[in-house]
Amino acid sequence: MPSSGRNQNSKPLRAPKRSPCPVAYALDVLGDRWTLLIVRDLLLGHSRFRDFSASPEGIPTNILSDRLERLLEQQIVEHMPAQDGTKRLAYRLTDKGRALGSILKAMRDWGLAWDKSTRVMTRKLG
Amino acid sequence: MPSSGRNQNSKPLRAPKRSPCPVAYALDVLGDRWTLLIVRDLLLGHSRFRDFSASPEGIPTNILSDRLERLLEQQIVEHMPAQDGTKRLAYRLTDKGRALGSILKAMRDWGLAWDKSTRVMTRKLG
Repeated sequence: MPSSGRNQNSKPLRAPKRSPCPVAYALDVLGDRWTLLIVRDLLLGHSRFRDFSASPEGIPTNILSDRLERLLEQQIVEHMPAQDGTKRLAYRLTDKGRALGSILKAMRDWGLAWDKSTRVMTRKLG
Repeated sequence: MPSSGRNQNSKPLRAPKRSPCPVAYALDVLGDRWTLLIVRDLLLGHSRFRDFSASPEGIPTNILSDRLERLLEQQIVEHMPAQDGTKRLAYRLTDKGRALGSILKAMRDWGLAWDKSTRVMTRKLG
C-alpha cells in the first residue's frame, strides 16, 4: 500500500480559513488540479488506489497518496474493506463527498461547452 | 499598473491537455485556490486590480497578476476601459467567464452545507 506519510508535495491538511466565504472554503479543500479528479473517479465507482492511479490523467502516486489523505481528513472519503478478499483498504465517498457531484457536473458542462476537444467519457456523473 | 510579466509563481498558461475529460480541462484552467475567487469578484461587479486585491482572502499581488493574465489568455476575462476617466485598464467577464457562475454557485452551496462557519457574503451569485 502506498505510504500515506507526509512528503515534499504536502501542504498543511487544513490551512487557516481565508474568509467566511463558502467558495473560499470549497477552494481551500478542493482547489488544485487533482483532488476533484479523484472525487470524479470515486463517483464513477472506483475505490482502489490502483484504479485512481490508472486514470488517463496519470496522477503521480505521491500526489495521489497526499490527496487521499487530505480527503480522509476532510471526511470527504472514508475507508472501507476491499472487496477482493485482500487486506488492502479501499475508499468510498461520504455524504459530504457525494454532495460534490453538483460541482463536478457544473465543471463537466462548462468544459463540454467551451472546449470542443473534450467529450463525455461516462454518463455516470449525471 | 502591476506588471503582467512572467514571475516566479508562473506556470505555463496552458499545460498540455491531460485527457479528453471536460472536468480535467476545467481543472487545467481553474484548478488552484485563487482563480475562482477572482471570477467570484468579477461576478459581484468588481473590475479593477485594486478591488480584487482588497478582497478578504488577501490574494498576493504577484499571484493576482499571474491569474488575471491566465484568465485573459483563456478568454474568460477581457479588458475594458476604466470608468473613472483614468487610463488604467479594468476587467470584465466574457460569455465563457459568466458561464462559470454555475460552478461557483455549486461551490457556494456545498460550502454552506458542509462548513457551518461559512456564510453568504452577497446574494449576487444567484
